[in-house]
Amino acid sequence: MPDYKVYYFNVKALGEPLRFLLSYGNLPFDDVRITREEWPALKPTMPMGQMPVLEVDGKKVHQSVAMSRYLANQVGLAGADDWENLMIDTVVDTVNDFRLKIAVVSYEPDDEIKEKKLVTLNNEVIPFYLEKLDDIARDNNGYLANSKLSWADIYFTAILDYLNYMTKSDLVANHPNLQRVVDNVTSIESIRSWIDKRPKTEI
Amino acid sequence: MPDYKVYYFNVKALGEPLRFLLSYGNLPFDDVRITREEWPALKPTMPMGQMPVLEVDGKKVHQSVAMSRYLANQVGLAGADDWENLMIDTVVDTVNDFRLKIAVVSYEPDDEIKEKKLVTLNNEVIPFYLEKLDDIARDNNGYLANSKLSWADIYFTAILDYLNYMTKSDLVANHPNLQRVVDNVTSIESIRSWIDKRPKTEI
Repeated sequence: MPDYKVYYFNVKALGEPLRFLLSYGNLPFDDVRITREEWPALKPTMPMGQMPVLEVDGKKVHQSVAMSRYLANQVGLAGADDWENLMIDTVVDTVNDFRLKIAVVSYEPDDEIKEKKLVTLNNEVIPFYLEKLDDIARDNNGYLANSKLSWADIYFTAILDYLNYMTKSDLVANHPNLQRVVDNVTSIESIRSWIDKRPKTEI
Repeated sequence: MPDYKVYYFNVKALGEPLRFLLSYGNLPFDDVRITREEWPALKPTMPMGQMPVLEVDGKKVHQSVAMSRYLANQVGLAGADDWENLMIDTVVDTVNDFRLKIAVVSYEPDDEIKEKKLVTLNNEVIPFYLEKLDDIARDNNGYLANSKLSWADIYFTAILDYLNYMTKSDLVANHPNLQRVVDNVTSIESIRSWIDKRPKTEI
């Protein structure tokens, strides 16, 4: 079994899909949490100077979606064929677009610009994405692709706390089909066990 | 053979990787170019109301990177195993991050903000990404992953015109290893033939 390490800050955010997927497959991993003080010295050792980073038998890789797809293949959560994988990839990239649209407002440093952007985000962008994603979950019986569990469900559920934190809301509260996705993922014993034992962090 | 359609505006940009990949595989496709006047009526028929859209035997899908990966699998430009695919996915997502960082400045509507952002983009972001990508191309002998042709090379080469358009520059001019990637792709006969016959557009 390969030796896995996840390098990230002491937050869930973009590292959590990796931790969920490794936990789902019962693959032991070293959950390395870097402090803000340690980061400047470590940054040059990371590909592209960013985290999360996954280390597999000493080889460091980056890009959270690419790493999640790789782990999904190791733990049996990819699609059964190219078309199923396309369905998974499409919804994961849509979830990621949604995250970026939220993040660009959440991290806007200028208060005046931020207030303006928040209006569009809250009145247009968030309702649009939630409705589309909820429709997909309805059409797939409580999953995000192919009417069965895949890494798309894991990815969405794992970053949901981060999306909720940035939007100061409970995004799935009024979207029962997305709530079913979350319930389907968090009721898996290995995921439940990870959630119970992971460090408690706000983000 | 499936019936392929590519729906996009009359531009290269994010549709061009799909057209390159279909051309590479000698897969006939209907290259549907929508005018700005036709778009409002068509928009509600497209998943997420966006293009490019790929139609495969009547089924419409979206997300340019996901569609490119799917086509790559059909034409033999994916990796040989999960690790090779991870190397490809990582560099494609990095190229896509680079595109987004350029686009957010290029499409900034406020002139004053744009001027400020252009300084960081030109002095920091662009040199950083180009240096990293050029190093990857050097380490992979003129390819972006696994020292052999893959859809990562096709994706980069196909969107390069768009990146050059947004940055008003020739991004690979002083990056000989990235220039080798472009040369390796554009010297493929099926790609060369597509480039010769495609509609001439600025973007």
